[in-house]
Amino acid sequence: MTPPSYPHRHLLGIEPLEPSHITAVLDTAEALREVLDRPIKKVPALRGKTVVNLFYEASTRTRASFEIAEKVLSADSLSIATSTSSVQKGETLLDTAKNLEAMNPDMIVLRHAASGAPHFLARHCRSAIVNAGDGAHEHPTQALLDALTLRQKKGRLAGLRVAIVGDVMHSRVARSNAWLLTKMGAEIILCAPPTLIPKGIERLAPVTSRIDEAVEGADAIMMLRIQQERMTGGYFPTVREYHARFGLTEERVKRARKDVLILHPGPMNRGVEIASEVADGPYSVILDQVTNGVAVRMAVLYLLLGGVPEAA
Amino acid sequence: MTPPSYPHRHLLGIEPLEPSHITAVLDTAEALREVLDRPIKKVPALRGKTVVNLFYEASTRTRASFEIAEKVLSADSLSIATSTSSVQKGETLLDTAKNLEAMNPDMIVLRHAASGAPHFLARHCRSAIVNAGDGAHEHPTQALLDALTLRQKKGRLAGLRVAIVGDVMHSRVARSNAWLLTKMGAEIILCAPPTLIPKGIERLAPVTSRIDEAVEGADAIMMLRIQQERMTGGYFPTVREYHARFGLTEERVKRARKDVLILHPGPMNRGVEIASEVADGPYSVILDQVTNGVAVRMAVLYLLLGGVPEAA
Amino acid sequence: MTPPSYPHRHLLGIEPLEPSHITAVLDTAEALREVLDRPIKKVPALRGKTVVNLFYEASTRTRASFEIAEKVLSADSLSIATSTSSVQKGETLLDTAKNLEAMNPDMIVLRHAASGAPHFLARHCRSAIVNAGDGAHEHPTQALLDALTLRQKKGRLAGLRVAIVGDVMHSRVARSNAWLLTKMGAEIILCAPPTLIPKGIERLAPVTSRIDEAVEGADAIMMLRIQQERMTGGYFPTVREYHARFGLTEERVKRARKDVLILHPGPMNRGVEIASEVADGPYSVILDQVTNGVAVRMAVLYLLLGGVPEAA
Repeated sequence: MTPPSYPHRHLLGIEPLEPSHITAVLDTAEALREVLDRPIKKVPALRGKTVVNLFYEASTRTRASFEIAEKVLSADSLSIATSTSSVQKGETLLDTAKNLEAMNPDMIVLRHAASGAPHFLARHCRSAIVNAGDGAHEHPTQALLDALTLRQKKGRLAGLRVAIVGDVMHSRVARSNAWLLTKMGAEIILCAPPTLIPKGIERLAPVTSRIDEAVEGADAIMMLRIQQERMTGGYFPTVREYHARFGLTEERVKRARKDVLILHPGPMNRGVEIASEVADGPYSVILDQVTNGVAVRMAVLYLLLGGVPEAA
Repeated sequence: MTPPSYPHRHLLGIEPLEPSHITAVLDTAEALREVLDRPIKKVPALRGKTVVNLFYEASTRTRASFEIAEKVLSADSLSIATSTSSVQKGETLLDTAKNLEAMNPDMIVLRHAASGAPHFLARHCRSAIVNAGDGAHEHPTQALLDALTLRQKKGRLAGLRVAIVGDVMHSRVARSNAWLLTKMGAEIILCAPPTLIPKGIERLAPVTSRIDEAVEGADAIMMLRIQQERMTGGYFPTVREYHARFGLTEERVKRARKDVLILHPGPMNRGVEIASEVADGPYSVILDQVTNGVAVRMAVLYLLLGGVPEAA
Repeated sequence: MTPPSYPHRHLLGIEPLEPSHITAVLDTAEALREVLDRPIKKVPALRGKTVVNLFYEASTRTRASFEIAEKVLSADSLSIATSTSSVQKGETLLDTAKNLEAMNPDMIVLRHAASGAPHFLARHCRSAIVNAGDGAHEHPTQALLDALTLRQKKGRLAGLRVAIVGDVMHSRVARSNAWLLTKMGAEIILCAPPTLIPKGIERLAPVTSRIDEAVEGADAIMMLRIQQERMTGGYFPTVREYHARFGLTEERVKRARKDVLILHPGPMNRGVEIASEVADGPYSVILDQVTNGVAVRMAVLYLLLGGVPEAA
């Protein structure tokens, strides 16, 4: 495999990427994906490389996905969750990262509640930095796995009509996807309750508060997770009312194209932002997203850590 | 080694197993056990296989035992404890499992507070499922390691007289052992305070509330852990009184056979269900149980994941 | 490489070591250190050896440092933090350790809040025990990495004048360093607020409460971490006052030798025991300490577990 061209040392977000860089990650992910179907899911590509997964926010799927990607590629990985670490002792993010870096890892995968935290590390550390979600800013590997899923099922990204529905204001998933899809020539429409539409977002994409309008004729619908803390934050009245006005039901899916794809980054609140029949229905590609997540993270590790091509 | 016959895809409990299946696991465990005594404790049998240890309840020994078994067999393993995971975000067990499964693991080892949780996963997931303890229902690898220990020391299971003493009502260990020992032809007697005897249990084995009667002439005594939450639940008056009436003391051990074996699944409450002199005494095989636990889990991994025989 | 002579089965503290044992660890660390600069940071020296990291206190850097050292040497490692373990279930340290030991690990690395906990395990367990910090008693790998850093930068330990400044009373780092430096022929001076000077310590080294006196002409200054719990314990009035009287500022550094080295075991309280300009300044070797920490732990693992020389 000739590695496609990804010229950056880090993956901090989708916004700074050019379409060819995005394509490079997706092509690499597609090439590496078949390793996951082998009876022996292991290639020596990153043997002797060390990756630190530094998670300041709880996570199952993203952390598990990175860890599995690391193990499949034979990297050594070390996961640090703040609950059992000296982060509690009040050390700054930079001191923690500098200290980890002094142990000579090749990459730090960072999830942090502060927007820009991985960019800050990238300016001050030598290791390759991967943003695994920074506050309400970006979650680039999520957007890449969503794109891989769309491209697999639809054969292309350009020209697709994609509705992104939910708490757009607080969603790093929405932001990264809006950047990626726009760059790749898809047409997106954002849909959120009026209290959850960030100011100025209409410069990036058209916005509506009517879900029926958003999903009309859509090739794909990306539902966003409603976070419990928003529910009690006065952003919307009740879970029941949220579901009534913004939940994706089977009836609403019918307004989209017949071959619409339903995506959700998980974990899902069934009966809140998405009805169970839709989540488990024929158009749902939610579990494909998860599988593609491992492939995309393998690709990012491989491209950033200079994997040995013949070993893959 | 010709792998003995274990025809199931999962290990959900002892109840559905036939004696030959139990023997298959025990024979495999005995064959694999010597790997643990080698200076280099590592065989490539499960290289490239991925096992997810999904623990919804705190555990040291069971989780450590599975992790060591996985590493000795060269499997890649990923451990998820609920305290640092999105399980806190309210996702259902099935969604969590489906998501993990979409990352293509070969096996999910599940500990869960709800009886039947692993059976539920087995119905809905493609991965091999191993029950590492489900509520008060079953803990099959514990019963298998207890049986391995008894068989090693006594040369047989059939005909042994085994007393199981303690909180029978809430004990998955008691339930799995009762099934296993009965199937293998041992004679068991259950002993518990009257408030901790489940209704209908006398159909499975004779029951008494007098420990002296239970241990009389026993080949083995299995003590059950008293859980703190029971102590405050009104099931029995005080720790001191529990020890006086149901604790295993040296004096009581004398009522059993001269070559009696004392077992405990741990962690022990010394001075409550078991006196320290007994726990550390000559008849105690409590630490043998732990060593055999690794061997039994290696056997289960090996049999379910189709290990390459010549690699072991 | 001919392994230098380290005759002990454990590493419990610096106090029982002879200078030649300390030199053996430092020489081994220096030889192994270059592995960390290789593109493929992996040697098979400890393949098939199992190390349990048993941490009863939160830790990022020490645990991460041990884990990386273990992975670089190809050992299998298992980390147990008390927050997700049955330690919460009230089991004694000895029972936990005995149980882990029954799983046949080759080494247990223990951090515990009680002084003497690793010595207790060493008396009762067969595994090699490494003390990763026991209460206010010792933290031997920290002193060894500090010594490795000093020796690298200064070419020697004998004759160096080293000031150790801060909460000497509660610091295992101070205690291990005082032993090590004294044994190796360095001249140390301890500096602490009068309330934080342990009784009888003047038998080990001269003591002062004036930092200006302590750092005067020093070849190296080791700052100790002030722990939050001391701040509220009435040991000193306020953080601001502590900084004013005992904080290491640029002005105070000027009293030391021109080529002074500044050390800190981390995590740092910037603006409390150390000014940021000093922590990040030209004399700071704080990050060298971290890198050397991995090398020292590799050396300890290697020497205690009888690594295969030609494999390193």
